[in-house]
Amino acid sequence: MDLGMTDRVRPLVEQVRAMIADDIEPLDHEFHALVGTHPSGDRFQHVPRQLEILDGLKAKARERGLWNFWLTDSEKGQGLTTVEYAYLAEEMGKVRLAAEVFNCSAPDTGNMEVFERYGTAAHKERWLKPLLAGEIRSAYVMTEPDVASSDAAQLAFEAREDGDAYVLNGEKWWISGAGDPRCKVYILLAETDPDADKHKRHSMFVLPADAEGIEILRPMQVFNHDDAPHGHMHLRFTEVRVPKEDLVLGRGRGFEVAQGRLGPGRIHHCMRAIGQAEKALEMMCKRGLAREAFGKPIAQLGANYDIIANARMEIEMARLLCLKAAWMMDTSSPKEAAPWISQIKVVAPLMAQKVLDEAMQLHGAQGISQDTDLAAMYTHNRTLRFADGPDAVHRRQVARAELRKHTNMRL
Amino acid sequence: MDLGMTDRVRPLVEQVRAMIADDIEPLDHEFHALVGTHPSGDRFQHVPRQLEILDGLKAKARERGLWNFWLTDSEKGQGLTTVEYAYLAEEMGKVRLAAEVFNCSAPDTGNMEVFERYGTAAHKERWLKPLLAGEIRSAYVMTEPDVASSDAAQLAFEAREDGDAYVLNGEKWWISGAGDPRCKVYILLAETDPDADKHKRHSMFVLPADAEGIEILRPMQVFNHDDAPHGHMHLRFTEVRVPKEDLVLGRGRGFEVAQGRLGPGRIHHCMRAIGQAEKALEMMCKRGLAREAFGKPIAQLGANYDIIANARMEIEMARLLCLKAAWMMDTSSPKEAAPWISQIKVVAPLMAQKVLDEAMQLHGAQGISQDTDLAAMYTHNRTLRFADGPDAVHRRQVARAELRKHTNMRL
Amino acid sequence: MDLGMTDRVRPLVEQVRAMIADDIEPLDHEFHALVGTHPSGDRFQHVPRQLEILDGLKAKARERGLWNFWLTDSEKGQGLTTVEYAYLAEEMGKVRLAAEVFNCSAPDTGNMEVFERYGTAAHKERWLKPLLAGEIRSAYVMTEPDVASSDAAQLAFEAREDGDAYVLNGEKWWISGAGDPRCKVYILLAETDPDADKHKRHSMFVLPADAEGIEILRPMQVFNHDDAPHGHMHLRFTEVRVPKEDLVLGRGRGFEVAQGRLGPGRIHHCMRAIGQAEKALEMMCKRGLAREAFGKPIAQLGANYDIIANARMEIEMARLLCLKAAWMMDTSSPKEAAPWISQIKVVAPLMAQKVLDEAMQLHGAQGISQDTDLAAMYTHNRTLRFADGPDAVHRRQVARAELRKHTNMRL
Amino acid sequence: MDLGMTDRVRPLVEQVRAMIADDIEPLDHEFHALVGTHPSGDRFQHVPRQLEILDGLKAKARERGLWNFWLTDSEKGQGLTTVEYAYLAEEMGKVRLAAEVFNCSAPDTGNMEVFERYGTAAHKERWLKPLLAGEIRSAYVMTEPDVASSDAAQLAFEAREDGDAYVLNGEKWWISGAGDPRCKVYILLAETDPDADKHKRHSMFVLPADAEGIEILRPMQVFNHDDAPHGHMHLRFTEVRVPKEDLVLGRGRGFEVAQGRLGPGRIHHCMRAIGQAEKALEMMCKRGLAREAFGKPIAQLGANYDIIANARMEIEMARLLCLKAAWMMDTSSPKEAAPWISQIKVVAPLMAQKVLDEAMQLHGAQGISQDTDLAAMYTHNRTLRFADGPDAVHRRQVARAELRKHTNMRL
Repeated sequence: MDLGMTDRVRPLVEQVRAMIADDIEPLDHEFHALVGTHPSGDRFQHVPRQLEILDGLKAKARERGLWNFWLTDSEKGQGLTTVEYAYLAEEMGKVRLAAEVFNCSAPDTGNMEVFERYGTAAHKERWLKPLLAGEIRSAYVMTEPDVASSDAAQLAFEAREDGDAYVLNGEKWWISGAGDPRCKVYILLAETDPDADKHKRHSMFVLPADAEGIEILRPMQVFNHDDAPHGHMHLRFTEVRVPKEDLVLGRGRGFEVAQGRLGPGRIHHCMRAIGQAEKALEMMCKRGLAREAFGKPIAQLGANYDIIANARMEIEMARLLCLKAAWMMDTSSPKEAAPWISQIKVVAPLMAQKVLDEAMQLHGAQGISQDTDLAAMYTHNRTLRFADGPDAVHRRQVARAELRKHTNMRL
Repeated sequence: MDLGMTDRVRPLVEQVRAMIADDIEPLDHEFHALVGTHPSGDRFQHVPRQLEILDGLKAKARERGLWNFWLTDSEKGQGLTTVEYAYLAEEMGKVRLAAEVFNCSAPDTGNMEVFERYGTAAHKERWLKPLLAGEIRSAYVMTEPDVASSDAAQLAFEAREDGDAYVLNGEKWWISGAGDPRCKVYILLAETDPDADKHKRHSMFVLPADAEGIEILRPMQVFNHDDAPHGHMHLRFTEVRVPKEDLVLGRGRGFEVAQGRLGPGRIHHCMRAIGQAEKALEMMCKRGLAREAFGKPIAQLGANYDIIANARMEIEMARLLCLKAAWMMDTSSPKEAAPWISQIKVVAPLMAQKVLDEAMQLHGAQGISQDTDLAAMYTHNRTLRFADGPDAVHRRQVARAELRKHTNMRL
Repeated sequence: MDLGMTDRVRPLVEQVRAMIADDIEPLDHEFHALVGTHPSGDRFQHVPRQLEILDGLKAKARERGLWNFWLTDSEKGQGLTTVEYAYLAEEMGKVRLAAEVFNCSAPDTGNMEVFERYGTAAHKERWLKPLLAGEIRSAYVMTEPDVASSDAAQLAFEAREDGDAYVLNGEKWWISGAGDPRCKVYILLAETDPDADKHKRHSMFVLPADAEGIEILRPMQVFNHDDAPHGHMHLRFTEVRVPKEDLVLGRGRGFEVAQGRLGPGRIHHCMRAIGQAEKALEMMCKRGLAREAFGKPIAQLGANYDIIANARMEIEMARLLCLKAAWMMDTSSPKEAAPWISQIKVVAPLMAQKVLDEAMQLHGAQGISQDTDLAAMYTHNRTLRFADGPDAVHRRQVARAELRKHTNMRL
Repeated sequence: MDLGMTDRVRPLVEQVRAMIADDIEPLDHEFHALVGTHPSGDRFQHVPRQLEILDGLKAKARERGLWNFWLTDSEKGQGLTTVEYAYLAEEMGKVRLAAEVFNCSAPDTGNMEVFERYGTAAHKERWLKPLLAGEIRSAYVMTEPDVASSDAAQLAFEAREDGDAYVLNGEKWWISGAGDPRCKVYILLAETDPDADKHKRHSMFVLPADAEGIEILRPMQVFNHDDAPHGHMHLRFTEVRVPKEDLVLGRGRGFEVAQGRLGPGRIHHCMRAIGQAEKALEMMCKRGLAREAFGKPIAQLGANYDIIANARMEIEMARLLCLKAAWMMDTSSPKEAAPWISQIKVVAPLMAQKVLDEAMQLHGAQGISQDTDLAAMYTHNRTLRFADGPDAVHRRQVARAELRKHTNMRL
C-alpha cells in the first residue's frame, strides 16, 4: 500500500506547484476582481481580459504537458494512479483557477469520464474531444428542486418517449458551471420509467446546452454569492427534444452511469479540500508569526499552539485517509472502494471547514474579508457537505458497511 | 435573580413578535432583493421603495410605542431592565430589518448611549435627538487596519492638536453602517497622547460623517458580500478637523468611553444571536417534518433527533447565561458584570454558529442559498466572533477572573 | 422565574458548606480508606470506626436542622422549593459522604417519596419513619440483566399471584446501596400482567431486604471498583413472597410510581454533578497556580486559560439549566417539566465528565490516582449517563417535545 | 511510502491473531480473576495458576517464533520494520495479556532497547539476555512526585558520587511493573550534576530491583484500581549504592538515553491503543446488532449509525497516522520523526478514549462493569495521555515544528 509520492509524479507535482505559484496565483485575484464588470451588467459574461487570462494559462499548461492528470489508468491521459493524482489535485485546491488551468476541474472531469466510458463515437467526437482539449466546458444535470436527491425515488424530472426522441420537461437546480457561456454540453438524468424498480427508473442523456426549450431561471447563491461566471444554475426544461441516440448506456441505466461518475468526483473534491486546509494552515502560521499583540507573536498567545497542532494532525489524517481511499480505487472493485470514498467524503470537507474557520479566526476580521481567500474557500468547501450526497448519507453507508461485517441482516 | 419575562415586558414581546411576523418579515425579502438596483449602480444608495419600506415600518413602530427599548434604566426609553430587553432583542434577531425598525440596532444604540452619558448639550441636540427619533444613523469608528485591535497600544490613528481643533489622519476599517447614506455622525477613537500610559493615550471624538477629508476607500466584504447598503467601510481621514468641544468626556479618556459603550453592545449582539439560533431550530424542525426521504420525515432519519435535541439544549443554556449576564448588568457594577459579558460573548455566537450550520445541513443545498435566511444569518453571526473582541480575548478574561478567586498574583 | 438563592436558603447553604468543610471532608478520606479493612475480609461490612464517623456526622447534621432538605413542598421537611434544594444539593455533590450525612442521598430520597406519596400507613410507620430519621437505608430494585431497561416491555422479572401474596422470581442488577448492611427495605418493580398494555404490565412492591429467597450474586463493578460498602448489587430472587398489601398504589400501576419517583431523582443527580464539576474547576485553578513548569504557573501554559474559561462557562450554563428545570418542577405539571428534566439529565453528566477529564489532565497522573478525588468523581459521574435512562433516550424525549410544537404527527 | 501489511508480516499477524483468539483470550479473564487471591493477601503476589498461565503461553509463543517482534531492524529479533511491527502490536492491544506473551510489553521493550544500544557487556549478559528470553521483567524509573516531569529541570532525585559508586536518594512514583515480583532490574534517571545545563544534569543508571535501600511505599491507583500484580509503584530510595560501571552511556547523558528510549515506547502504546479502539468498535457493532429495544436492533436507533461510522473513520485515520509515524521512524532521523511521534501520541489515546466511551455507552451499564473489558481498556488508555509526556507537551512540539517551517525565530 504505497501511499507516497512516486518518482513519476514527484516532478509533476513540482511543476504544478511552481506554475501555480509563478503563473496562476498572480492572476487569480485579477480574474476574480473582474467578475461583474462586463458592460452588459451580466455577471455571467467574461470580459476579454478574463478569457485572456484563462486561455493563456491553459495554453501554457497544455504546452508543458501539465494537462488532464485526472484521466487515471488511461491511455489518453498521463496514466497516473488515483494516488498519484491526489498529490496533484491537492496542489490545485490551493488556488481557485488552478484546477481549470490544468483541465482537471469539476464537473468536466466526471463528464469526460462518462463520455469516455459510455459515450458513442459521435459523443466522443463532438464533446469529449473539445473537452479534453479544454476548449469547451460542460455541466452535469441531476439535482432537482424540492426533493431529497439522495433518495433516487424522488427524482421525477420527466423524459417522455416520443418517436425517435425523448422529450424533457421539468426543473433542475444547482447545475454547476451552467452559468459559464463556454459550457456547451449537458449530461442529464431523467426519469424514463416511473413504474420500474427504484434504481431502474432513470436514464442518462447528452444534450447541447443551447438546446431549444432550456431556460436559466436564476443562479443559486452560495452564502449570498452567485459564483459567477461559473454559477450554480436553476434551469427549466420545456419540451426539450433529445434524439434517442443520445441516451447513454441504455434506458433505465441512469443510476449505473451516475454511480460510476460520482466515485472519482467525490474524491477529487476531497483532495482539493485537503489542499485548501493545508493552505489555510500555512496562512495561519504566517499570520501567527507576523502579527503581534501584547508584545508577542499571536501564534504564542492563548490556545494558538494547540490550534495549529490540531490543524496539522487533522490535515495529516485526512490526507492519509484520502490516499488510502484513492489506493482502494486503484486496486479494488468499486464496491469495495465505496465505503472508503464515503469515509473521506465525510472527513475531508468537515476537517477543511474546521481548519478554515480557525484560520479565519486567527486572521481577525480580515479573515472573512476579500483581503484573503479564506472566506471564498470556506463557502466553496461548505457546499461539499451537500454535493454528491450529504454527510448523513455517507455516514450511513459507512455504518452499514461496518455492521455488515458482523451480520447478514438487511440494514 | 428573576430571569423570567416580567408582566411589564410580556405584552411588549407579544407586540414585537406580532409586528415582526405581520409587518416586517413580509417586507424583509423585498427590501433585500432591492439592494443593488439603484440606477446609479451604487449598491450603497437606497431606491425609493427601500426607504418607503423602512420609514413606513419605523413610523408604525414608533406610533405603537415599540421604540427605543434598549434605553434600559432611563427616562427617555421604556425604563426596561436589561433582562427585559433581552426578550425583546431576541425577537428582533430573527429578521434582518427588525432591530432598526424598533430603533434598537447597532451601532446606533451604543452611540446613543455615548451621547446620553457623555455628550454635551450640543451633541444631544444635534445628534442624539434625531437618532432617538430614528431620523438619522451613526457609525462607531474604532478598528484600524493591520493591527490587533484588542491590544489598545496598537491603535495609532492620529489626532493632532492644532489651535482650537484636533486634526485627524489615518485609516479605519470595518466601520459598520458607514455605507448607509443616512449615516450622519461618527464617534471616533484616536490617539492624542502616544506617550501616555497605554490606556490614557486615546480620546473619543464626535464628527459629522460628511466632514471634509473623509474618504470611503471600499466596503469590506463579509464572506464575499458587501452588506450594502449598511456596509462595513474602509475609510481614510486626511487632515480632518474636529473642534475641541467635540472631544468626548476629556482628553485621554477614550478607553473609558469605549468600555462603557461596549458592554451593552456586546450583550445585545448575543441576544439577537440567540434569536437567530431559535429561528434556525424552528426552521430545522419544520423542514425535518415536511421533507421526506426513504419513506420517512427526515427528522426521523439518522442523528437528526440528536441534532435537534442538542440544538434545543444549547439554545436554552446560552439564553439563560445571557439573561444572567443581563441581570448582572442590572444589579452589579460594570467590573463585576464584565466576566459574565465575556462569557456570553464567547458562548452565544459559537452556539448560534453551530445551530445555524446544522440547520443549513438539514436543509440541503437550499440551506446555503438565497431561498432561506440561514446563510445570511450565518455570515452575520460569524462576524460576532471578531467584533468587540475575539473569542480568545474574552476567554482570557474569563480565565483570569476565575484564577483571581484563588490568587493575588498578577495574571 | 427566580433562579437565585433565596433569603431562606442562603443561610442553609452557608451552614451546609461550612459543615462539609469543617466536619465532613476531614473524615471523608478516613472513611473511604477503611473500606475493605473488615477482619472478615468482607468489603461490604463496615468497621466500627466507619459507623462512628457516619453516625456522628448524621447526628450533628440532624441536631443542627440540616436534614431532609430534599422533601420539597412538604410539611415533613424544610418546605424548600426544588430551586432552593438545588443550591444545597450542589454543595453535597462535592464530597462523597455529604449527601448521606444530611439524609439527602440516593436512592433513599426517591424511595422516601414513594412511601410518602403512595405508601400505606404501615409502610410509613415501618419504613418511612426510620428512613426519615436516617436510621436505615433502602434500595430501588428495577434494572434487569440482559435487557434494554429503557424499553419497559423488556422488563420481565416475574411477580406471580399466589393466594394473599405475590411470589417474586428473577434477577435484578445494578441495585445501588444493596451492599450496605444498613439497607433494610427494597422497592421493587415486577411484571404482574405480561399480557396487559406495555405500561400496565408492571407493579411496584415493598419488601424487607432480608426476605427469604433473596441472594446477592455479586457486586457490579464500576470501572473495576465495587463501590463498597454501598455497592451496586446483582441479586437473585427465588420464590420470594410479598403480601398483597405491600403492592404499592395498585396492580399494573408500577410505571406510574416509577415515573413519579424518577423525575426528582434525575435532577438531584444533576445538581450534585454540577457540584462535582465546580469542585474540579476549583482544583484545576489551584493546581494551575501552584504547579510550575518552564518557569511559569501551568495555568498560564498552552491552552489552559481556554480550558479554565470553557469549564467556567459550561458549568454556569448547566447550573442555570438545572435551576430552570427545577423551577419547572416547582411551577408546572410533571408533563411540562419532563423535557426539561431530560435536557439537564443529558447536559449535566456530560459537562461534568468533560470538566473532570480536563481537571485530571491538568493534574498529571496524580489526577487519576488516589491522591485526589477526581477519578472517583469521574467514575461515579460516568454512571449517571446510564442511570435513569441513557443519554440517547433523553435526547429522543427532548427532540420529540421540540417537534411536537410543530406537528400533531405521532413521533 | 508503503504503509500496508507486507508479505513478510502478514503470516505473523495471522498467527498472532490466531494465538490471541485461541490461546490467550480464553485465559485472560481467568488470570485477572485470580488477582488478589494469594493466601498472603498480597495482591502483588501471583498464585501458581497465574504463573502457569503466563509461562505456558510464553513458552508456546516462543516455540512458534512469535517472539520479540518489537526488535525492529535488529539481528536479535525478527528484523521487522516499525511499520510491520505496528500491525502486530495492534493485535496485541486487544487482549491484556497478549503483549507480554509475545515478549513485546512495556516497559521491557524500551528497557531492552537501552541495554542493547547503550548497555555494557555485563548488562547485556545479566539483564538483556533474560529479558529477551522473557524470564524476568524490568522497570523504568523516571517520574518523580510533585514535579512537572515534562520539565526536565524539575527532576531532582539525587545521585551523589561517592568513591566508586553513586548513591541514590529520593522518591520516584508511577513506576510501572515494579509491583511484579518478576521485575528484577531498574533503569533509573537521577540528577548527578544539578549545576549543569538543563539537559546535561541527569544520568541513567542500571540497578537490581532488590538493591538495598529501595522501599515500595504504595501502589499508585488508576481510577481506584492498583493494576496488580503489575502495579505502578511509589518507591523510596535511601542511600542506594550503584557501582560506577552501571551508569549508562556517560555522566550527564541521561536525557540522551531517555529520548532514544521514549520514541519507540510512545508509538508502541499508540499501536496498542488503536487495537483497543478496533476491538471496542467490533463490540459496539455486535452489541448493536444483538440487543433490541423498541422492536429494533439498537444499532439502528438514534444516532448509532453515526456513532459507528465516526468510530470507523477515526480509527482508520489514527491507524494511518500511526503507520506514517512508524514509517518516518524507519526511514528518517529521530529528529525528523519526532513531531510525527508527537502527533500520534496525541491522536491515538484521545481517539481510543472517545471510541471506548461510545462503546461503553452503547453497552449500557454493562459497559462499565466487569462483564466487558471496556472499562479496563478505558482506564488503561486514559493513562497514556499522561505517560511519556502529556498531550499539551506533544501538541506544543507539533506546533513548534509547524511554525519552524516559516521562521527562524526561537519558539
